[in-house]
Amino acid sequence: MQTKRVRDILRYGKPDETVTIQGWVRTKRELKEFAFMEVNDGSSLNSLQVVLDESVPNYQDVLKLLNTGASVEVSGTLVQSPGKGQNIELKAAKVQVYGTSDPETYPLQKKRHSFEFLRTIGHLRSRTNTLGAVIRVRNACATAIHKFFQERDFLWIHTPIITASDCEGAGELFTVTNFDLGKVPLDKQQKIDYTQDFFGKQAYLTVSGQLEAEVMAMAFQNVYTFGPTFRAENSNTSRHLAEFWMVEPEMAFCDIEGDQDLAEEFLKYIFKYVLEACPEDMEFFNKRIDKSVLETADNIINNEFERITYTKAIELLEKSNKKFEYAVEWGIDLQSEHERYLAEELFKKPLIVTNYPTGIKAFYMRLNDDNKTVAAMDVLAPKIGEIIGGSQREERLDILEKRINEMGIIPDDLWWYLDLRRYGTVPHAGFGLGFERVVQFMTGMTNIRDVIPFPRTPLSAEF
Amino acid sequence: MQTKRVRDILRYGKPDETVTIQGWVRTKRELKEFAFMEVNDGSSLNSLQVVLDESVPNYQDVLKLLNTGASVEVSGTLVQSPGKGQNIELKAAKVQVYGTSDPETYPLQKKRHSFEFLRTIGHLRSRTNTLGAVIRVRNACATAIHKFFQERDFLWIHTPIITASDCEGAGELFTVTNFDLGKVPLDKQQKIDYTQDFFGKQAYLTVSGQLEAEVMAMAFQNVYTFGPTFRAENSNTSRHLAEFWMVEPEMAFCDIEGDQDLAEEFLKYIFKYVLEACPEDMEFFNKRIDKSVLETADNIINNEFERITYTKAIELLEKSNKKFEYAVEWGIDLQSEHERYLAEELFKKPLIVTNYPTGIKAFYMRLNDDNKTVAAMDVLAPKIGEIIGGSQREERLDILEKRINEMGIIPDDLWWYLDLRRYGTVPHAGFGLGFERVVQFMTGMTNIRDVIPFPRTPLSAEF
Repeated sequence: MQTKRVRDILRYGKPDETVTIQGWVRTKRELKEFAFMEVNDGSSLNSLQVVLDESVPNYQDVLKLLNTGASVEVSGTLVQSPGKGQNIELKAAKVQVYGTSDPETYPLQKKRHSFEFLRTIGHLRSRTNTLGAVIRVRNACATAIHKFFQERDFLWIHTPIITASDCEGAGELFTVTNFDLGKVPLDKQQKIDYTQDFFGKQAYLTVSGQLEAEVMAMAFQNVYTFGPTFRAENSNTSRHLAEFWMVEPEMAFCDIEGDQDLAEEFLKYIFKYVLEACPEDMEFFNKRIDKSVLETADNIINNEFERITYTKAIELLEKSNKKFEYAVEWGIDLQSEHERYLAEELFKKPLIVTNYPTGIKAFYMRLNDDNKTVAAMDVLAPKIGEIIGGSQREERLDILEKRINEMGIIPDDLWWYLDLRRYGTVPHAGFGLGFERVVQFMTGMTNIRDVIPFPRTPLSAEF
Repeated sequence: MQTKRVRDILRYGKPDETVTIQGWVRTKRELKEFAFMEVNDGSSLNSLQVVLDESVPNYQDVLKLLNTGASVEVSGTLVQSPGKGQNIELKAAKVQVYGTSDPETYPLQKKRHSFEFLRTIGHLRSRTNTLGAVIRVRNACATAIHKFFQERDFLWIHTPIITASDCEGAGELFTVTNFDLGKVPLDKQQKIDYTQDFFGKQAYLTVSGQLEAEVMAMAFQNVYTFGPTFRAENSNTSRHLAEFWMVEPEMAFCDIEGDQDLAEEFLKYIFKYVLEACPEDMEFFNKRIDKSVLETADNIINNEFERITYTKAIELLEKSNKKFEYAVEWGIDLQSEHERYLAEELFKKPLIVTNYPTGIKAFYMRLNDDNKTVAAMDVLAPKIGEIIGGSQREERLDILEKRINEMGIIPDDLWWYLDLRRYGTVPHAGFGLGFERVVQFMTGMTNIRDVIPFPRTPLSAEF
């Protein structure tokens, strides 16, 4: 007999159907003549209620083993459920216990555990309702991302994880080495002799695949990356991870307008997809974790994003008469409080701010004709703040070289990046989206460590 | 006017249709009254032929700029092509040159370049026929992998890249550190004081996500990883990369039979998908790179895989009367020559070898009742050799602990892995597939460095 997933039985199961399920016991309740247990197999937030009685072979012996966490295979017949909350339950004919679970020591008992405690048992926490729902939403969101880009003929590009270029700002990079750290070789000048290291030079973990994605956009027009990126930042906050996944589309023959169009279409698509793929999980988050989760998703899906320039944003902030912690003036980087005022209080919907001052943005962003702003864009959403950052890239060799020099970057390190402007350069644009940030916003989870299976943070690389 | 991709025009374009394309000039041929150029946009191996004449504004000026590598936008009307090899061509009405390309310095001229030379211009090589085809096949294969697992309700799990556990064999691991390598801090015993490093302990780049995937299979039944893995092996061969992508499904309630079934279904699926998604590219490889590429794919798709035990394989090798470089006897690890004899000469189709001697396999593989073999499986294919390695995992706590001790692994490092056997353990199985190896086999490319956008190998981490 083929086994069925619990989710499919709950959705499509009919009385009198005989089925086999496999999963883990969540709870057991013994009554006089019979017993109930909830079996969860990870396919759904909801468990299937199983009814057992003396007709099950070795009933009394089996019953003793059915503790929270035990693994079972149950065969039987579906019956209409008299209880409320579910339509169908499984009348067991046969129960096999694969693995027991000692109720004295199993850390996941039927009470509420703090997320902080659950992080210490990262190997078991996915068996809880909340973490289970997070992982299913995470999978649906990742699937939506691939689907969105593949439907639009973007190629998934695996940009390198180990990189020898350090162009986006040093100090936050992890070093990758094959040296014995107790015997790092020195050269004649008593400097570290990286020529003896695995790659023959100093190597790091990547902070972004963008520059390499630009290479590929110059051959295939539309590409995207979806891979891990790293920051060695010592930030022990609820919004930072040392290792996280990032999505970075890059489009040739595309300007800042097209970039905004794609970002808006993309966000709407992934939120919509997840709502459709994981309705029970999303309702669970809305009920138990953050009561604005569905409203936030709805706001993104059903509103045309407002689009304003940075200069306009500063004007609006100055006119607001709000007391901000960080004073507002043209040239500042927008702070979270400014972004939230614009998105939540003023526009009450997502907005895209464009054309930021040159001084606060990266070297590769395209200089506007005013010579003081660049064609950058940030997507801000209510309750969320900045969710996407992107730009049109500087495709003009002379201006790019000037910017690189101004920023003190050594042009030789970027010879290949400059070559892209030398041979068949085109207007192009792209953006970046922190995958865990999005999952955090979708689910309303407070701490980003709870939306990735095994978080890496300062002093923590468990499991 | 919306722009079209060249692939769609070549497939579906009709005479008299007006279209705009954007791409890069591959070649130009000037005749007396008119000129031809081939424009490629990366969507297809094939370029679109564009016909230009004096009716194009600034014809003579524009013509001078249309060198190999220049980027253009061309608007015009599709016409039936009189030439052979294509059905349709574009009669240009308007040509805009975005970026020029100096024929004196552009490294990609219309001659054949060696793959070795192309690796030195990794930022441009995707603009060639072969590398372009590789990247499209790679994308199709990656998409097939996600599709296969998502259709079967497997969740994509992002297992950690940075890990503090070193259980699969030291010496091949890259160290990840935030230390200034010139000033590595020492403790009182003059040993490296890793408590001062970013993660508070020694950290590495992962060699496999399997152990963490097992964690997730114990909560969701069926999961898979698809992410980068690393080996600091000093192997300068055509089959090794220091950084490569790996696919690792893991299934709860699954034994070695189910594992083999999934592996066979999976391989057939991805080969079939790529043949359908990239017919021109696959034909190109078959014609220009390796004349057995299509035959190899066909052999995988259309044969039921043979299944034999290791013991039987040894018997067959001994009976073969072949002179092998490595002598055959029970207990040896099968060498490439043995695997190829079995797959290519004897069975002439893919086969799965199971139940290998305990001594040559990893600690987590399930011990068989004979106490001398484990429930491992390797999938071998003609022309390819080993393409998948997997096993049923040891789910019995006492036997696993014994194996760990025998191998000299410190059980405390694996406390969480052992916990999976303590609480609700189930029979489970999985396998691993090196993604670049598969792309190499699919395309017939000789060197694995040519099937990944930016290869990382000893002394090389360019771009």
